[in-house]
Amino acid sequence: MVRELGALLVADPFVVMNAIGLVAFALVGASKAIREQFDLFGIAVVGLATAFAGGMTRDILVNRIPLALSDPSEIALGVVGVGLAIGLHVVLESPDDHPVTLVSDAVGLAAFATAGAIVATEAGVSAFGVVAIATVNAVGGGAIADILLDRAPFILFEDFYASCAVLGGTTYWLAVTAGLGGSTAAAACAAVTVGTRLIAVTQGWSLPTAQRFRPG
Amino acid sequence: MVRELGALLVADPFVVMNAIGLVAFALVGASKAIREQFDLFGIAVVGLATAFAGGMTRDILVNRIPLALSDPSEIALGVVGVGLAIGLHVVLESPDDHPVTLVSDAVGLAAFATAGAIVATEAGVSAFGVVAIATVNAVGGGAIADILLDRAPFILFEDFYASCAVLGGTTYWLAVTAGLGGSTAAAACAAVTVGTRLIAVTQGWSLPTAQRFRPG
Amino acid sequence: MVRELGALLVADPFVVMNAIGLVAFALVGASKAIREQFDLFGIAVVGLATAFAGGMTRDILVNRIPLALSDPSEIALGVVGVGLAIGLHVVLESPDDHPVTLVSDAVGLAAFATAGAIVATEAGVSAFGVVAIATVNAVGGGAIADILLDRAPFILFEDFYASCAVLGGTTYWLAVTAGLGGSTAAAACAAVTVGTRLIAVTQGWSLPTAQRFRPG
Repeated sequence: MVRELGALLVADPFVVMNAIGLVAFALVGASKAIREQFDLFGIAVVGLATAFAGGMTRDILVNRIPLALSDPSEIALGVVGVGLAIGLHVVLESPDDHPVTLVSDAVGLAAFATAGAIVATEAGVSAFGVVAIATVNAVGGGAIADILLDRAPFILFEDFYASCAVLGGTTYWLAVTAGLGGSTAAAACAAVTVGTRLIAVTQGWSLPTAQRFRPG
Repeated sequence: MVRELGALLVADPFVVMNAIGLVAFALVGASKAIREQFDLFGIAVVGLATAFAGGMTRDILVNRIPLALSDPSEIALGVVGVGLAIGLHVVLESPDDHPVTLVSDAVGLAAFATAGAIVATEAGVSAFGVVAIATVNAVGGGAIADILLDRAPFILFEDFYASCAVLGGTTYWLAVTAGLGGSTAAAACAAVTVGTRLIAVTQGWSLPTAQRFRPG
Repeated sequence: MVRELGALLVADPFVVMNAIGLVAFALVGASKAIREQFDLFGIAVVGLATAFAGGMTRDILVNRIPLALSDPSEIALGVVGVGLAIGLHVVLESPDDHPVTLVSDAVGLAAFATAGAIVATEAGVSAFGVVAIATVNAVGGGAIADILLDRAPFILFEDFYASCAVLGGTTYWLAVTAGLGGSTAAAACAAVTVGTRLIAVTQGWSLPTAQRFRPG
C-alpha cells in the first residue's frame, strides 16, 4: 500500500496531496468544533468546510468548477477526516491540543500548499500567482474554521502559518523553473511547508505583527 | 396566462423558478430595508442584492458569468419585486412581518433552491454539489440582506431555513437520479422546500444550535 | 513618452487604465498602512491587496483567471505604487492625508472604473452588468484596504465614492451604445469619475445615508 501510494505520488502528485489535505483538515476542523461542543451536524459542517474552503477558492481563481462540488471522492475523504476526529475524541482526551491534531494541521497545510502550487502551475499563472494560489489553498481552511467558530481569522497573521505556505509555494515554483519534475517539486514544497511549520510550532516562532510597531 | 406559465414550467423550469425567486426575494429584501427606514436608493440596493446574491454565487461556482450581469431581464424582475414591496408598504402597515412577506420568503427560498439544483445538475456536479449549490442559491439572498442591514447573518443557522433548501436539493437529486423528468423533479424540489419552510414558520420549528450544547 | 502613452491609450485603453489604477491604488493602500505604522511586509500586503482586489473580483465575475495571478506586470506595477508611497512618506510628512494621496485615490478610482467597464463590455454583459463591474473594479481596493486595516468598509456608502464609479460606468455604457469608439468612451468614463470624485472631495458632497432617515 505504501509502495502503491509512492507510485501514485510520482504518477499524480496532486491526487495524493489533495487527498492528504482533505483528510487532515477535516480532522482539524472537526476537532475544533468538538472542543466547542458543537453537535454532530455542526462538527460535520465545520470539518467539511475546513477541508473544502481552500480548494474551492483555488478552483474559482483558476476558473474551474470546484472539485469539492464535482468529485464525489472529495466528500468521502472529508467524511473520513471527520470520523477520525470523532474517533480521536473518544480515544484521547483533548484532540484539539493533542500533537496528533497539531501535526495533522501542519501536514494538511503542506499538502494543500502543494496541491495549490500544482493546480496553479498547470493553469499557467505567473510566479506570484503560483505562490498566492498555493497559500490560499493552504490557509483557506483554517480561516473558514475560525469564522465558523466565531473567532477572528487573524490567527493567520499572528504566527508562522501562512508564511510556511508562502515558502512552500516559492520552493515549488523555483523547483519547476529550475527544470525539476513535478513530483520532485511537490515533495520539496511539502517538505519545506511542513518542516517550517513544525519547527515554528515547537520553537514558538512568530512573525512581527503590526502591533509591535505601533506606538505604546 | 396560468396555462402559459404551466407550459413554460414544463418547457424550461429554470426560467420560471428563477423569475419567481427574483421577484419574491427582491420584495423581501426591499421590505426589510423599508422597515429599517432606508431611503429609496437603499431600498433598491438591498432588494436587488437580495434577489441577485444567491444566483451570482451559484454562477461563479459553476463557472459562468452571473446571469444578473448578463441578462437584462434579471434586473427588470428585481425592480418588479422592489416595486411590489413599496406598493405593499403603501397598502398594508408592516410589510416586513406581514404574511405576504413571510410567504414570499418561503416561495423565493423554494424557487431559488430549485433553480440552483437545475443549474448544478446541468453543470454535471456530484450529488453533494447539487445540494450545496441549491442551498447557496436559496440562502445567499437572505444572508446578504442581513449583512447590508447590519444584522448577523446567523439567522441562517438559527431556524429551519437553510435546512429546507437542503431537503429540497436532496429531493431534486433523488428525483433526477430515479429517472424522473426535470419538470417533475423541479416541482418536487419546490414543493418540499416551500412546504417544510411554511410548516417550520407556523410551527416554530428550530434546529438545535451549538449553544444548546455548550456548558452553562 | 506622453505621446507614446497617448498612442497606447488609443490603441489599448484597458492596458493604460489598468496600469494607472494599479500604481495609484497600491500607493493609496500602502500609504494607509504606513499611517497605521505597519511593518514593511504589512505595507506591501495592504498596498498590493488594494491594487489587486477590484480587478480580481472583476475577473472572477467575467469568468477568467485574475490578471493579478497570471500577468507578472501587474505585481511589478503594484510594487512601483508601494515604492512611491514609501518615497512620499520619506519626503512628505503625512502621505495619507496629503493631496497627492487624495488625488491618487480619485485617479485610481477613475482608472479602475474605466478598466472594469472595458472588460465588462468585451464580456458582453448587460448595461447593468457594465455599471456593476465598473463599480466593483473601482471600489474593491478601498473596501479590502479598510478590512485589512480593521476599519468598517462602510466608508464606501458614506460619501460620494462608489457613486462616482456608477456615474463613470454609466457614461461608458452610454458612449459605447451611442456608437462612440472605445477610447473616447474610456476617456469620458475616466473624466466623469475623477471629476465628480474630486468635486465631491473638495466640496464635501455626501449622499444621504440611511441613518438620516432613521427615527430619533
